Amino acid sequence: MNGAEAVLKTLANAGVDVCFSNPGTSEMQMVAAFDREPRVRPVLTLFEGVATGAADGYARMAGRPASTLLHLGAGLANGSANLHNARRAFSPMVNIVGDHATDHRQHDAPLTSDIESQARPNSVWVKSADSPDTAAALAAEAVAASCGPPGGVATLILPGDTAWTEVADQKPPSPPLRRAPLPVSASAVHAAARALKAAAKPVLLLGSLATTETGLAAAGRIAATGVRILVDTFLARQPRGAGRFAPDKMMYFGEMALSDLAGIDLMVLVGTKTPVAFFAYPAMPSVLVPDGCTVETLSALHEDAAGALEMLADSLGAPKAPTVQAANLPAAPTGDLTPYSIGDSIARWMPEDAVVCDDAVTAGLPIYMQTRGARPHDWLFLTGGAIGQAIPLAIGAALAEPERKVLSLNGDGAAAYTVQGLWTMAREGLNVVTVIFANHAYRILNIELMRTRSGQAGPQAQRLLDLGDPRMDWVQIAQGFGVPAIRCSDAESFDTALARAIAGEGPMLIEAVLG
Amino acid sequence: MNGAEAVLKTLANAGVDVCFSNPGTSEMQMVAAFDREPRVRPVLTLFEGVATGAADGYARMAGRPASTLLHLGAGLANGSANLHNARRAFSPMVNIVGDHATDHRQHDAPLTSDIESQARPNSVWVKSADSPDTAAALAAEAVAASCGPPGGVATLILPGDTAWTEVADQKPPSPPLRRAPLPVSASAVHAAARALKAAAKPVLLLGSLATTETGLAAAGRIAATGVRILVDTFLARQPRGAGRFAPDKMMYFGEMALSDLAGIDLMVLVGTKTPVAFFAYPAMPSVLVPDGCTVETLSALHEDAAGALEMLADSLGAPKAPTVQAANLPAAPTGDLTPYSIGDSIARWMPEDAVVCDDAVTAGLPIYMQTRGARPHDWLFLTGGAIGQAIPLAIGAALAEPERKVLSLNGDGAAAYTVQGLWTMAREGLNVVTVIFANHAYRILNIELMRTRSGQAGPQAQRLLDLGDPRMDWVQIAQGFGVPAIRCSDAESFDTALARAIAGEGPMLIEAVLG
Repeated sequence: MNGAEAVLKTLANAGVDVCFSNPGTSEMQMVAAFDREPRVRPVLTLFEGVATGAADGYARMAGRPASTLLHLGAGLANGSANLHNARRAFSPMVNIVGDHATDHRQHDAPLTSDIESQARPNSVWVKSADSPDTAAALAAEAVAASCGPPGGVATLILPGDTAWTEVADQKPPSPPLRRAPLPVSASAVHAAARALKAAAKPVLLLGSLATTETGLAAAGRIAATGVRILVDTFLARQPRGAGRFAPDKMMYFGEMALSDLAGIDLMVLVGTKTPVAFFAYPAMPSVLVPDGCTVETLSALHEDAAGALEMLADSLGAPKAPTVQAANLPAAPTGDLTPYSIGDSIARWMPEDAVVCDDAVTAGLPIYMQTRGARPHDWLFLTGGAIGQAIPLAIGAALAEPERKVLSLNGDGAAAYTVQGLWTMAREGLNVVTVIFANHAYRILNIELMRTRSGQAGPQAQRLLDLGDPRMDWVQIAQGFGVPAIRCSDAESFDTALARAIAGEGPMLIEAVLG
Repeated sequence: MNGAEAVLKTLANAGVDVCFSNPGTSEMQMVAAFDREPRVRPVLTLFEGVATGAADGYARMAGRPASTLLHLGAGLANGSANLHNARRAFSPMVNIVGDHATDHRQHDAPLTSDIESQARPNSVWVKSADSPDTAAALAAEAVAASCGPPGGVATLILPGDTAWTEVADQKPPSPPLRRAPLPVSASAVHAAARALKAAAKPVLLLGSLATTETGLAAAGRIAATGVRILVDTFLARQPRGAGRFAPDKMMYFGEMALSDLAGIDLMVLVGTKTPVAFFAYPAMPSVLVPDGCTVETLSALHEDAAGALEMLADSLGAPKAPTVQAANLPAAPTGDLTPYSIGDSIARWMPEDAVVCDDAVTAGLPIYMQTRGARPHDWLFLTGGAIGQAIPLAIGAALAEPERKVLSLNGDGAAAYTVQGLWTMAREGLNVVTVIFANHAYRILNIELMRTRSGQAGPQAQRLLDLGDPRMDWVQIAQGFGVPAIRCSDAESFDTALARAIAGEGPMLIEAVLG
């Protein structure tokens, strides 16, 4: 058994059962090892950003790390935008980054680069296995580090000679799969309860670490006592739909958020940090807490937020049953195709346990609103703001949950970043319906141009925000990558197409032409 | 004038006349500034790796830096693989990376990341313009740093508040466009000449900094004295074809290179470093210098390699006229479509002053060989080994040289990385013929799997190197991005299609089906 196989078997022993891969020469030993370790399924992607985004989607749904296989610093860099999103989602993930053999590094061959510097910004753990006899132990350490709490990206650099050399210990370790977050103390819960009772207008703000099924159910119990529950704008995963508690959401634009929060005198943070504006704007505040509002923390990022919410609900004497959302399936939409009509169609046809991967940018919120009363489903958000996530995320979600239907919602600008992910959907026959919102523009930036007070857009600026010259033909692009596709321009045809796509098996793409 | 405009005007004053852009909210002031600074042409790309690769292609052809506009750390990361290639090509380039406003950074908003850590591995210069009043001076410093010698990537981080705040000094500086490399000393030239005369079997090894038109002409004079001239395997740019000196090329695989160099007792480096193998392999040497061979340096990376070659040619008493390649236009190829038949077609139809951007991987060398005697042209290589370069590079080359025909040669695996670059070709109406070598595999990795002694490929390994399930339809993909396309499966139809594409205006893609 060589170092590569020892690493792979260690991952398998830890329950890491998929590896999203973009290998090159320095990863050939890992590639060969897959045939000697059938517990890890290698999944080929055509670009590293697809691999890392897929690992993120897998982690969000499976609750355990996937691995990636990346080609030196350049491959890691290509995957880094979606690593950034994964970091913001606290997704556990183990990157295996091949490197030159240790004694080859000194020669500065063309592909040599500072891998650690590239890895550090998005990783909670970065080490290089410079000896075959440390490789398995470091792989175990990487898995443990990725599991947190909270979860994060662990990056193991694997030099070629470590990979190809026989290891002394032929029995790779079996690291524990996941460490539980620490429980919060009873005193912290009681303090929060006291503060909530004393406050005139309190809110609880829940982040990604709190919005599990049990966490939201407990929050729904607390809501029944009259405390307002908010969630962060972008969550790793939100179970929602009929029969589940439907919290309010922090508004994206800071001034709207502050207006919504006006008069709040207490904000209790649960598995999140003090809310801040996504971007800064001239003469606008960064921190989204009203003046005079006290901020308390119920559970920090490494603590058990869902457990804390249950304890808090009990402490407040909340009813056992949470406030829940009623079912509400809209009527068939007609007329113009809009994000609202598309939201209605999605709400109508999305089956129970569907998974929505949302990188729809300006179209996202209307669809989120329209699907409030849909059948129970999970919603995965763009956590880090690096667009080009929903195609990769859907790949990972579909592999983690092959029995569930996955919807990938993409702005046309966003989809262009990781478009080659469609090929992996076709290759693996994944149960994903991809919707492209073809508004032929970076629509959000037209809004941001005004908000940043950049002035009226002249022709040059306008052209930089425009995707309409030429229009991308998403049907041809999808078919070119092996995914059947259809174009819809009105609400009725979209509704019919979506129903058919959801009823079918395997991947399908719908280009929704918006104006 | 705000900080963004001051930066843009400084770039324009330095002769930086194009900006390959992927802006987001934090870059809106730069976007707006383009309408107030018409000397810089903004070119929109759909992915940052297209922007950076295009800036590299522009620099290689224009000999001066282009700029890019990138969105925080995630955008920079997306561009980093082609920054890596640019670094290895010594291409001057100025990245403008938008960042959060300086006082917003502390709040760790979703898009916050360590931009400098991402930038450092590929940049010769990284600074953040944290005050509007330093922005223009730092932009000037960035241009100067990028110009070297040798050239490199300079990364200027531009916080939102610097961009939107009025600057005190309303007259941006006019930095010098390019600093000349330092001349080598006469004594260094005479030492090299003496060593060459004393050696039994010497070679001169030229790198990217030496293979200018004048450098190669001087090398051709030296070749006429009986000294063998070699060039690095991957050069930023090589002027070649009929009437130009045709040096030998270092072989890609180390053992072949060493066999080719057997018996060499002196290697003189000109604008390059001691040659090393691209990858390390078990029990194979890294350094590609035969035992007993002395290595001398005629010109270091910051020195004038072409001037040094001219001085050396004179010192050796070389004839005034270089040894040159005779014209050799092959006959029309027939039968199976192969890299050799494609090379023949390219040699037949490529017009004078064509520019070839080569990311054809296994198909590249046969085409390079077949075009030795074609009309004079420039060949741009994959300098850093990060595939996904030829589509972006061609965009930049075509914008730098609108009157010249550009050929973009891509392995199908390589093209998938930056496929969305086709849209920019269509949008800008660029004079580029893109050829996709559709062998439906990462063919090179099948070779590397053996060379790394990874063993016989099992079914899992085989599948990770295979692109045939499903086959990508490059005609549909290209048309989807707005580029007309055609598929060819035999030598005759490719020859006809290429002739037509070259005769036409604007972009065209040919899918060359290889088996």
